Amino acid sequence: MGDRLSTSEGSRLQFSQDESYHPPKTPDAVVRPVSEQEISKIVSLCSRYRTPIIPFGAGTSLEGGILAIHGGVCIEMSAMNQVLRVNGEDQDVTVQAGVTRMQLNSQIRETGLFFPVDPGADATIGGMTSTRASGTNSVRYGTMRENVLNVRVVLANGKVIKTGGRARKSAAGYDLTRLFVGAEGTLGVITEVTLRLHGIPEATTVAICSFPSVRAAVSCSVSTIQYGVPVARIELIDKLQMRACNNYSFLNLPEAPTLFFEFHGSTAGVREQAETVEGIAKGLGGESFKWAEKTEERTHLWQARHDALYAALALKPGAQAWSTDVCVPVSRLAECIEDTRLDIEKSRATATIVGHVGDGNFHVIFLIDPKCPEEQKIARQINHRMISRVIAMEGTCSGEHGIGIGKKDYLDIEFGEALGIMHDLKHTLDPCNLMNPGKVLDSDYYSSQIS
Amino acid sequence: MGDRLSTSEGSRLQFSQDESYHPPKTPDAVVRPVSEQEISKIVSLCSRYRTPIIPFGAGTSLEGGILAIHGGVCIEMSAMNQVLRVNGEDQDVTVQAGVTRMQLNSQIRETGLFFPVDPGADATIGGMTSTRASGTNSVRYGTMRENVLNVRVVLANGKVIKTGGRARKSAAGYDLTRLFVGAEGTLGVITEVTLRLHGIPEATTVAICSFPSVRAAVSCSVSTIQYGVPVARIELIDKLQMRACNNYSFLNLPEAPTLFFEFHGSTAGVREQAETVEGIAKGLGGESFKWAEKTEERTHLWQARHDALYAALALKPGAQAWSTDVCVPVSRLAECIEDTRLDIEKSRATATIVGHVGDGNFHVIFLIDPKCPEEQKIARQINHRMISRVIAMEGTCSGEHGIGIGKKDYLDIEFGEALGIMHDLKHTLDPCNLMNPGKVLDSDYYSSQIS
Repeated sequence: MGDRLSTSEGSRLQFSQDESYHPPKTPDAVVRPVSEQEISKIVSLCSRYRTPIIPFGAGTSLEGGILAIHGGVCIEMSAMNQVLRVNGEDQDVTVQAGVTRMQLNSQIRETGLFFPVDPGADATIGGMTSTRASGTNSVRYGTMRENVLNVRVVLANGKVIKTGGRARKSAAGYDLTRLFVGAEGTLGVITEVTLRLHGIPEATTVAICSFPSVRAAVSCSVSTIQYGVPVARIELIDKLQMRACNNYSFLNLPEAPTLFFEFHGSTAGVREQAETVEGIAKGLGGESFKWAEKTEERTHLWQARHDALYAALALKPGAQAWSTDVCVPVSRLAECIEDTRLDIEKSRATATIVGHVGDGNFHVIFLIDPKCPEEQKIARQINHRMISRVIAMEGTCSGEHGIGIGKKDYLDIEFGEALGIMHDLKHTLDPCNLMNPGKVLDSDYYSSQIS
Repeated sequence: MGDRLSTSEGSRLQFSQDESYHPPKTPDAVVRPVSEQEISKIVSLCSRYRTPIIPFGAGTSLEGGILAIHGGVCIEMSAMNQVLRVNGEDQDVTVQAGVTRMQLNSQIRETGLFFPVDPGADATIGGMTSTRASGTNSVRYGTMRENVLNVRVVLANGKVIKTGGRARKSAAGYDLTRLFVGAEGTLGVITEVTLRLHGIPEATTVAICSFPSVRAAVSCSVSTIQYGVPVARIELIDKLQMRACNNYSFLNLPEAPTLFFEFHGSTAGVREQAETVEGIAKGLGGESFKWAEKTEERTHLWQARHDALYAALALKPGAQAWSTDVCVPVSRLAECIEDTRLDIEKSRATATIVGHVGDGNFHVIFLIDPKCPEEQKIARQINHRMISRVIAMEGTCSGEHGIGIGKKDYLDIEFGEALGIMHDLKHTLDPCNLMNPGKVLDSDYYSSQIS
């Protein structure tokens, strides 16, 4: 590998942490492969010497997904960054796993197509596939689950498989594609991904509306979907976050629970959508409904939404952010957010709430003084109570951030008996527990099963 | 089980065949369970005595999925036909696996919601889940892959698991739901399914247009999608099938490759969609573009499409139909259909072609004299050449009918090395090969691996 293999402390530290609250864990070596064949050789070698393998994309995971908790070799994917093939007519694209979503959209812009899945960070497609990522417009365009057509994967034994083709649908055999989407690198190293693309809409309109309560805002979101409005984005920003956004992004919006909408379609279509939603919003006490059709206005508003994390951080100088993530059936969303907000206030924590409410997905952003372990403890407790609440509501402990090391304990509560099947699958595909070990599933449980 | 267990020849014959061209295979016994608990007991007992288990829904499979090729117990699901819970606000429903799609839609009509996936037959939800079914409006609403939120499954050891919750999206753990969707009963018996529902659109319009060639019709379909028209259905009917439909359904449409469109949306929205498509169609030589807004007209036209199989049969009295199914990237669809049509004509077979062309999915309906083995042989050869062509085009050997026993040989060509992983998964979940054995995967291969 020459200088593409490094065991220097500098390199190892560079790949020892993600963007989460979890403390760094350093790999023993970092390699930067340039081909699938090289990855296959690295994995074969690691397998022979029982060395853990941790694929590393952009390092933007939020639950410790890329920490080298058992040491091993970090496979750093930045050199696997080629967009291999764009098929305009088929609206699909094949990329190497190290391509980032913004790079992809920039390289395909002239085709009139775009790739919609947009987690906040500029993650790699391999990483997004592995965490089953989604984002603000999944309510319209789906998550990685719906947008991945095929992956190429290096398995623990070094063999390479492809899991699908380029047909839009298939009833042929087990759905291996979906097995690797969301597996967080624990079943193999993804080297290539074929993605669905979507046409850039003819027109885009943004609307914003304030509500007297979170419940009214959520009702508006639910009704919008029920009316069949094909909304591209519905984002909730709670009162505290709205104050933060006003300050940080120089907005002058009411400090109240607020919905950001985006509509995609024909020029007439987006107007009709916005009008329908305006009617729904007014009926629920929505105020200051504003449209933004001009690109600059739209960009400014969405930039404010995308900068929510930085805006929140500015509320409490010196604080670190811990963004947690759950998803519930939308009928329980208002109650779930309200109960969580009450819990935050009772616990005297500082935390804002933002949500992709069309999907029932929301995030609590805790602002924690890194010098105060008590604040961390309180956040953990609120998070724990929130996840328990969510699972009791038939929701999930993660809508889009994944399990990593941070949420392993909740899988058992969420899946019960089915967790055993996940362990069985892991054991079948990775009998020596070398592929990103200790992520998603506990290594301890695993060892006890195979001994 | 009392009289809900039968070993009489009559019962066994009744559950010995599906709607495919494959000869019947009789189970040793037929049971009609009324609860998941009963199914668990049946499976445990069968496991103890190494007896194959074949779940049987409506018996409408088209690739021999429910034939008892190794004998065993047929678990006949007709008594598991309760719609358990409709959640209007969440737009989801939980049903027992024996509920049929028409029953479901009839029972939920008053909620203003519908379940879109519509294979031709009135299949059960369990069967549709197991074959990863789709239909005419999957281009808009997705297939079973996108519409199943959760399944409850009795595993080979009798244990019961649930694979998901009711949240719209989740990044928690391996995607077990998608593992069972499309597994054709080979990994467990599905007892309950939670499905996404969709709002009944405010307005529906149907349009029909004839084209000078299959290529022009397919181009129209591709352009429609590229323009971002959220079309609910685009169905291709080839020239011969159009003649059959005219005769059978008393239509008077040109005998030419024809597209049937359906548009869902607001009143203004569907007009706009239809106008956009009319423009596209005219630019490609489309003629006699007709809209049908009235319910009766629409129903008549779609009934004609749904009766395509019977119409085809009427072309050749006494013939049996064999409907095969492939799916390719849409950029290859015209070429694939044209080459297949040429092959049909050269081989002097009688066969029509219909397709869900928005997805790249099409069916060849062979009309075969049951007394003439030569005709069967010719159909098999055309089918074989077509599937080889499709796989070379990065398509799939089945878009929606599944593998059953009819397409097992093609999985190897389509998936290569990945087929080994499917066998490994099967072996992990069903170590004694008792769950619908010999379907999807070859029992022989299987035996050689575990011996």
